[in-house]
Amino acid sequence: MGAAVVLLSGGMDSTVLLGHLLRGGTDCRTLSIDYGQRHVRELDAARLIAAHYGVEHRVADLSSLKPLLAGSALTSDDVPLPHGHYAEESMKATVVPNRNMLMLAIAGAWAISVKADWIAYAAHAGDHAIYPDCRPEFMSAFERALYLADWHKVRLVAPFTDFTKASIALMGVRLGVPLHLTYSCYAGREEHCGKCGTCTERREAFALAQVIDPSTYEA
Amino acid sequence: MGAAVVLLSGGMDSTVLLGHLLRGGTDCRTLSIDYGQRHVRELDAARLIAAHYGVEHRVADLSSLKPLLAGSALTSDDVPLPHGHYAEESMKATVVPNRNMLMLAIAGAWAISVKADWIAYAAHAGDHAIYPDCRPEFMSAFERALYLADWHKVRLVAPFTDFTKASIALMGVRLGVPLHLTYSCYAGREEHCGKCGTCTERREAFALAQVIDPSTYEA
Repeated sequence: MGAAVVLLSGGMDSTVLLGHLLRGGTDCRTLSIDYGQRHVRELDAARLIAAHYGVEHRVADLSSLKPLLAGSALTSDDVPLPHGHYAEESMKATVVPNRNMLMLAIAGAWAISVKADWIAYAAHAGDHAIYPDCRPEFMSAFERALYLADWHKVRLVAPFTDFTKASIALMGVRLGVPLHLTYSCYAGREEHCGKCGTCTERREAFALAQVIDPSTYEA
Repeated sequence: MGAAVVLLSGGMDSTVLLGHLLRGGTDCRTLSIDYGQRHVRELDAARLIAAHYGVEHRVADLSSLKPLLAGSALTSDDVPLPHGHYAEESMKATVVPNRNMLMLAIAGAWAISVKADWIAYAAHAGDHAIYPDCRPEFMSAFERALYLADWHKVRLVAPFTDFTKASIALMGVRLGVPLHLTYSCYAGREEHCGKCGTCTERREAFALAQVIDPSTYEA
């Protein structure tokens, strides 16, 4: 119920969140962010997913901010992309400075503009180790700032903060979410590389949930 | 001391803040935001002010977000610009959805990227009545979110939150700040209109501070 602006990356987590909210009757608009990421391919996935559900989809273009967001493997060609698990120290190279606050602030702006009730965000427990801005403490502080930012009150919905990615995969299958349309590889080629942080987590999540992984991997 | 990213609109308040921080020996970078405002003229003023002080200046281009920020007289040509004091109800038409959080989030991103200690923002007491996102409660909540957003800790410096604009004008004169270069009119023409909200506040501030107003007004 109510109206929400859903941050839709084109990956599995945000797509399952969208499916979950729509199943509950929430009026959803979807927002993707072009922050100059290598894997701009995920924006095409987001478009297809929004079209699948017949919901409004906008892409906020922050690519001009790229010079201010230097130092991350996701935005700088001269920083190599690490492989392996999120929990590893090397994965910190994929942190984009203040990325989540930026994305949430834009979602908040749109929500205030259209008088939506919530912004919805699919951060989950597996993100916490390396991304401080995916943690519940950050989410609470951000929600308070957003609540105080305008006369129109917008809340933050982040129901997956204590979920594992395997639970999200399972939920996606149960809800009939079009997981075959999702894309999340940091390398950004046509198919998932199978080796980067998100690919490693994604493969493992499907395996742990004991459901079929609809993704095609290079390796 | 230390390093700061200073949000520089090109108006009087942020210019005095820059002068104040430089006088104290802070290493300052300056950031202006193009959010599709009518008064894009202020960005030229910001460039001249940064050049005057010999500090780095960047403009973050958010003009592509304009469709998401609908409904404000500052970004929509079909919403008329109100005249008079900030305290008046009509002035709420100049609120741009979540504008300050967006600007602060970008400043925070750049600060994290270059490992600066602070972001500095010149909100003052006269803004509180109509702009919730200029109030101390919002600033505190935002600062906490920013502090939690990354491994590198950035604080928010907003020393003018309890200052009147007249105090800022007086401080600017005492510090030898180039107030003649500042521009803040919402109408966005070459000279200050003299009638919009910021012009009304600006004229009054110089009069109350009993210092010379270096601005040229149309009316």
